[in-house]
Amino acid sequence: MTETLIKVDLSQSPYENDMIHNRWHPDVPMVATVKPGDDFILQTYDWTGGFIKNDESAADVRDIDLTTVHFLSGPIAVEGAEPGDLLVVDILDIGTLPGNEWGFNGFFSKNNGGGFLTDYFPQAQKSIWDIKGMFTSSRHIPGVRFAGLVHPGLIGCLPDPSLLATWNKREVDFIATNPTRIPPLANAPFPGTAHMGRLKGEARDAAAATGARTVPPREHGGNCDIKDLSRGARVYFPVYVKGAGLSVGDLHFSQGDGEITFCGAIEMPGWIHLGIHSLIKGGVAKYGIKNPIFKPSPIKPDYNDFLIFEGISVDDQGGQHYLDVFVAYQQACLNAINYLKKFGYSGAQAYAILGTAPVHGHISGVVDIPNACATLYLPTEIFDFDINPSADGPVPRDMAGSDVLLAPDL
Amino acid sequence: MTETLIKVDLSQSPYENDMIHNRWHPDVPMVATVKPGDDFILQTYDWTGGFIKNDESAADVRDIDLTTVHFLSGPIAVEGAEPGDLLVVDILDIGTLPGNEWGFNGFFSKNNGGGFLTDYFPQAQKSIWDIKGMFTSSRHIPGVRFAGLVHPGLIGCLPDPSLLATWNKREVDFIATNPTRIPPLANAPFPGTAHMGRLKGEARDAAAATGARTVPPREHGGNCDIKDLSRGARVYFPVYVKGAGLSVGDLHFSQGDGEITFCGAIEMPGWIHLGIHSLIKGGVAKYGIKNPIFKPSPIKPDYNDFLIFEGISVDDQGGQHYLDVFVAYQQACLNAINYLKKFGYSGAQAYAILGTAPVHGHISGVVDIPNACATLYLPTEIFDFDINPSADGPVPRDMAGSDVLLAPDL
Amino acid sequence: MTETLIKVDLSQSPYENDMIHNRWHPDVPMVATVKPGDDFILQTYDWTGGFIKNDESAADVRDIDLTTVHFLSGPIAVEGAEPGDLLVVDILDIGTLPGNEWGFNGFFSKNNGGGFLTDYFPQAQKSIWDIKGMFTSSRHIPGVRFAGLVHPGLIGCLPDPSLLATWNKREVDFIATNPTRIPPLANAPFPGTAHMGRLKGEARDAAAATGARTVPPREHGGNCDIKDLSRGARVYFPVYVKGAGLSVGDLHFSQGDGEITFCGAIEMPGWIHLGIHSLIKGGVAKYGIKNPIFKPSPIKPDYNDFLIFEGISVDDQGGQHYLDVFVAYQQACLNAINYLKKFGYSGAQAYAILGTAPVHGHISGVVDIPNACATLYLPTEIFDFDINPSADGPVPRDMAGSDVLLAPDL
Amino acid sequence: MTETLIKVDLSQSPYENDMIHNRWHPDVPMVATVKPGDDFILQTYDWTGGFIKNDESAADVRDIDLTTVHFLSGPIAVEGAEPGDLLVVDILDIGTLPGNEWGFNGFFSKNNGGGFLTDYFPQAQKSIWDIKGMFTSSRHIPGVRFAGLVHPGLIGCLPDPSLLATWNKREVDFIATNPTRIPPLANAPFPGTAHMGRLKGEARDAAAATGARTVPPREHGGNCDIKDLSRGARVYFPVYVKGAGLSVGDLHFSQGDGEITFCGAIEMPGWIHLGIHSLIKGGVAKYGIKNPIFKPSPIKPDYNDFLIFEGISVDDQGGQHYLDVFVAYQQACLNAINYLKKFGYSGAQAYAILGTAPVHGHISGVVDIPNACATLYLPTEIFDFDINPSADGPVPRDMAGSDVLLAPDL
Repeated sequence: MTETLIKVDLSQSPYENDMIHNRWHPDVPMVATVKPGDDFILQTYDWTGGFIKNDESAADVRDIDLTTVHFLSGPIAVEGAEPGDLLVVDILDIGTLPGNEWGFNGFFSKNNGGGFLTDYFPQAQKSIWDIKGMFTSSRHIPGVRFAGLVHPGLIGCLPDPSLLATWNKREVDFIATNPTRIPPLANAPFPGTAHMGRLKGEARDAAAATGARTVPPREHGGNCDIKDLSRGARVYFPVYVKGAGLSVGDLHFSQGDGEITFCGAIEMPGWIHLGIHSLIKGGVAKYGIKNPIFKPSPIKPDYNDFLIFEGISVDDQGGQHYLDVFVAYQQACLNAINYLKKFGYSGAQAYAILGTAPVHGHISGVVDIPNACATLYLPTEIFDFDINPSADGPVPRDMAGSDVLLAPDL
Repeated sequence: MTETLIKVDLSQSPYENDMIHNRWHPDVPMVATVKPGDDFILQTYDWTGGFIKNDESAADVRDIDLTTVHFLSGPIAVEGAEPGDLLVVDILDIGTLPGNEWGFNGFFSKNNGGGFLTDYFPQAQKSIWDIKGMFTSSRHIPGVRFAGLVHPGLIGCLPDPSLLATWNKREVDFIATNPTRIPPLANAPFPGTAHMGRLKGEARDAAAATGARTVPPREHGGNCDIKDLSRGARVYFPVYVKGAGLSVGDLHFSQGDGEITFCGAIEMPGWIHLGIHSLIKGGVAKYGIKNPIFKPSPIKPDYNDFLIFEGISVDDQGGQHYLDVFVAYQQACLNAINYLKKFGYSGAQAYAILGTAPVHGHISGVVDIPNACATLYLPTEIFDFDINPSADGPVPRDMAGSDVLLAPDL
Repeated sequence: MTETLIKVDLSQSPYENDMIHNRWHPDVPMVATVKPGDDFILQTYDWTGGFIKNDESAADVRDIDLTTVHFLSGPIAVEGAEPGDLLVVDILDIGTLPGNEWGFNGFFSKNNGGGFLTDYFPQAQKSIWDIKGMFTSSRHIPGVRFAGLVHPGLIGCLPDPSLLATWNKREVDFIATNPTRIPPLANAPFPGTAHMGRLKGEARDAAAATGARTVPPREHGGNCDIKDLSRGARVYFPVYVKGAGLSVGDLHFSQGDGEITFCGAIEMPGWIHLGIHSLIKGGVAKYGIKNPIFKPSPIKPDYNDFLIFEGISVDDQGGQHYLDVFVAYQQACLNAINYLKKFGYSGAQAYAILGTAPVHGHISGVVDIPNACATLYLPTEIFDFDINPSADGPVPRDMAGSDVLLAPDL
Repeated sequence: MTETLIKVDLSQSPYENDMIHNRWHPDVPMVATVKPGDDFILQTYDWTGGFIKNDESAADVRDIDLTTVHFLSGPIAVEGAEPGDLLVVDILDIGTLPGNEWGFNGFFSKNNGGGFLTDYFPQAQKSIWDIKGMFTSSRHIPGVRFAGLVHPGLIGCLPDPSLLATWNKREVDFIATNPTRIPPLANAPFPGTAHMGRLKGEARDAAAATGARTVPPREHGGNCDIKDLSRGARVYFPVYVKGAGLSVGDLHFSQGDGEITFCGAIEMPGWIHLGIHSLIKGGVAKYGIKNPIFKPSPIKPDYNDFLIFEGISVDDQGGQHYLDVFVAYQQACLNAINYLKKFGYSGAQAYAILGTAPVHGHISGVVDIPNACATLYLPTEIFDFDINPSADGPVPRDMAGSDVLLAPDL
């Protein structure tokens, strides 16, 4: 029986669990050691450490202190791993914790984090998704049910001091270019809410002062939020410190490309079963690796009938943006939202569907000046009614007064 | 036997064929009329009108006058089509013209158009791809062969005067923000090389003066370069003028997401077999449509084993960009290129592979400030050797002195 | 948290668990009642009730008393279900029991059950498959690993007395046509080892005397061993008795089409999470249903690179069989076995791979007299080496002295 | 431009074209010679040589002389091919001949060939399928349209004298076991209608006397009617004679597994583009090959939503058959036909759909005595209405008086 190396008690604060940490720093102590060939299970908190509840209010989404995230399980040391190696990791499976078969999705208030479409959905909103076996559906969004593309939003190895310094300088300098922006340009180290795992006392304080925030994806992987880096995938991680120090968290039951709702995918605590396939000694140089690479899972939802929405880099005020894929994807998403509203969904419901379902976002054209073209692939089979266009036009469905929960700014 | 409504003679200049045009304007005369339910064939030039040759020099790629593109076949009038309708079009098939079973791919010189990675590949380069049935390979890039994801790079309906005016104002104003930029921010109307189809004399000159260039994708579709809008797809086009006026060109035998090489995909002349499925009267309003939407083809290459490369919005000089998917995808592409170079490919060969093969580019994360995350899915089955990482490291292959053709700037 | 309606204790004989039964009979008492819309979990024994062990001997496969199988969990009553309805059941998920992350595959001795290729593999053999998350591999068969296509081998509703009588007459009459055949033509009721669930005393004995054996698939579904009726599928079962009486067992972690090894797939105890989607009242008549129909899972292994072997209905002695798909598929399997032996596998190892991996068996031609044509699709990606043909010929691999365990007849 | 080595004139009898033959014999002269690495095009008649017409009568299906089939194009000699080699052939593409964009499907009269369900459909029937690009539909069967899985029904290399003698003895002896059966058990050599290609005079007569009929699939491949051996596939053929002698014909635009309607798939004349990839010298022994093996196409219809019908080896008279996959598949087909009839189709229309659409037939269980289990996978996306079961039951569609054409026996 596979050993569970890290356990979490959801009734306990993650700050009380010393096998959890919420900053990246080379000094975070390893909490367990494994060998190539081993497989093991890590339990994780949801990324907020249990702050968001399965209830009928979005106040928690509005009020969350985002300096606390993400609570990660680890780091795990791998015998023999040295800087410059590639650590080959199999994601063998992921599941829910007993009694916690649900996840949340939300949009942050523009005043507290925002999101991809925060100008259109500026207030905190939340939907709850029930997980029944391999499927999920939400009491807040009728008519949609899909199989989970279960994945860790955040996984990677500890940085070494040099890499950490690069990150901090890069991001702090960047913040300095517009320090009062809301939402901010980036997140600087913030010792107050740092959880440095087993590091205590002065060592903890020193590391917390420079511990990199976990929000962005970086060279080591980290918070990539790549939906297809899912259970069944094999990942090749660059190693920076002796023992590698693999940490993971932010499990998602499902997510659309972009994680556009930011809070986030279908977020859940759970367990992840990992296998250390092997080490490729010196693999970083051998293969010219900067960021992790991976092979997709052979077992994942195979929806293949889509309705595809185009977007170009002209914003909805008519503003022209030069080959801007971000704007183009926003427009594709807004086009899909407008379409779904014709079937009776609220805009927020439609936005939540795009954030949670296995929607593909493709970079379709990035050279045809001045417009980038992005495309959003909406799987039609996740709806229990026909969403294809027809000569008769859409028949608005009775959504039974349902909606995504709203918590207005105070 | 299906009627061929437009024929092209590749030995003739496209300017001499009055069923061809290279600007968008409501006054371009319809060249044929069809009814809902009809199917028909249109032959097309390649997008350059035959300027690029199947030879061993990239001088043509360097020297092309980009004001001449794209040569489109049409417009075709559809009986009963009125502004505000959705025109439902089936792309029934696409093929090569007899004796022209080849296509080209290239990168423009930074001084003449550039491309997605023009800072890394600033000079004109070209590769030729032979088409054998459903497959293609290039004498300039050994070891790679794939099935074609054949599609029109450019398809859409004529704009009405209002939409045209919006485009011109938007883009001309945009150019004015940095008029001397190389490559330019956008392309303004340019009467000199305009081909207005059957429009002659003063009417031609008047229309040419404001005819929108065909380069960018816009509200009507146009030069979307979406690889999955392929033969077998069903497309719902907004109609702006009476009769719709459907035009098409820029056929691609295959292309990776982004059409990153710009010149372009695997470009070819050919024929396209279209069917007018139906009109959805008033469909634009009924479904809240701004840009075309489409359903993918049930028959397309189904490669599903990939090596996936991540990129984040930190450029290779360490510069930080805010949630910039363009930069993130550049980095993912450069990561893939560096990887392929370890197997013996030149950088230009690797770049050409990413531009031509059915590579997926996903917008993976767009909310984790400050870094966007983009992913590039490289199909492994297109190589005749194993490109997966292994403990032994890559064995550089003998590429037999091959390379993508280079034409230095003069 | 989903309720587990039936629990099993693997250290206890299934005969001591009154929520288990091993015969089909309308009088087997319901052990729990659910409503449309409910979901619930049932734990199950492996089909042999724990007789086969995770050890290094195949004696258990040789010595098993096949009158004891299959141990099913149920029957479950569904409120409102009446004869003639269709019971719509979602297979929401399936998993292993903690501490039992393994399964077995074997071939029965020709003297005790035999199998599809019993004339070629006449002795009892066994391999053990370790389950690590979504994947499995065997210490007895190196070089192969695959994702599980997890499914119940046996699921269906209780027959009514009339259907039961039809089964018994049909099969007993059939046995009478050759009563001494080894292996037998069919299995008659056998009261001695019957487990009739909660039925006790005379009622138990009466029902045991006519309780249908669980071996064959029949009109109600039953032991169909259809690999694609997997977790994620939706099944429409004919209802014969008030309350339906759904029973399930014989969980398989994976299986090739045909379950050719008979003992069987990768057999395991476990749990199955079921949802009662709905009842279609009178659905049997409305849709002209005789056997269950189902929709496949949206999430299952998606191996799509295959090596395909043909077989025709000429046996390997040159004997001609008229459009006999059974013989044709035997030949396709033997062709695949012979092929795999060239890479170093023993015949038994190759046979076990075909019985366990997600191999497709297609009925390719059944009209071209006198030969049927069957095809076997062997996924190439399950091997950790390249099994495709090449100019150099196969390089036999070092299988490290491994083999499928053998227990000669006594 | 790829050379067309064999041309056909559909207005001419195939007997007048000496690059056509309709019997297998080592003495049929090669009509062209190619080298490994070459690609070339062969035009072919439909399998009946043009006997079946695009009209509104099935009399031709009823009256056809089946001793004339199949008209094959070839044989093509491959330089360097010797007995015992594997000839590696790429099917690069397949298409229709200009002006012949249609195919036929039919059921033979039980008195003239019959078919898989001849006891249920004993009379000659015919439907015509229009081919529009990559899609087909039939004026005789409304509501269904699908992409073509285009393939050669018949392809293989010439037998040597020994293999030919084996075939003839095997089949003639088999016929002798029941020589008066209707339809017959097999087809003996029949010189009268033999077309031996360029062989003339006494040599022709001698070869015609023993030329094997082309109906069954055999060791060399031949009339396998495997739908997935489609354009894009790579095939490894055993070579028996110097030069190999590859012949091909019986092109199908689409077919369901089993080719259950026998006359046949969607049958058409056309062209096939082949590439000789290479020879594997001595490959038959190296890989233990008896029948051809192949790799599937990377580009084929990817319908993946199915309604799956089970069948067991109990016939519809209640007769018990021992592990008989033929009977089980018949029952699965009948179950699907009965289901489709509830939507308004005639039985013949439903039968024709199963014979032509890309339906999968799987051998699901072949060990659970006494019943085999076969499954038929009906793609739901080929219908322009929803064929899934629902609580409301099926709504019969207006099929507008259409039906498959019937020609009663005279």
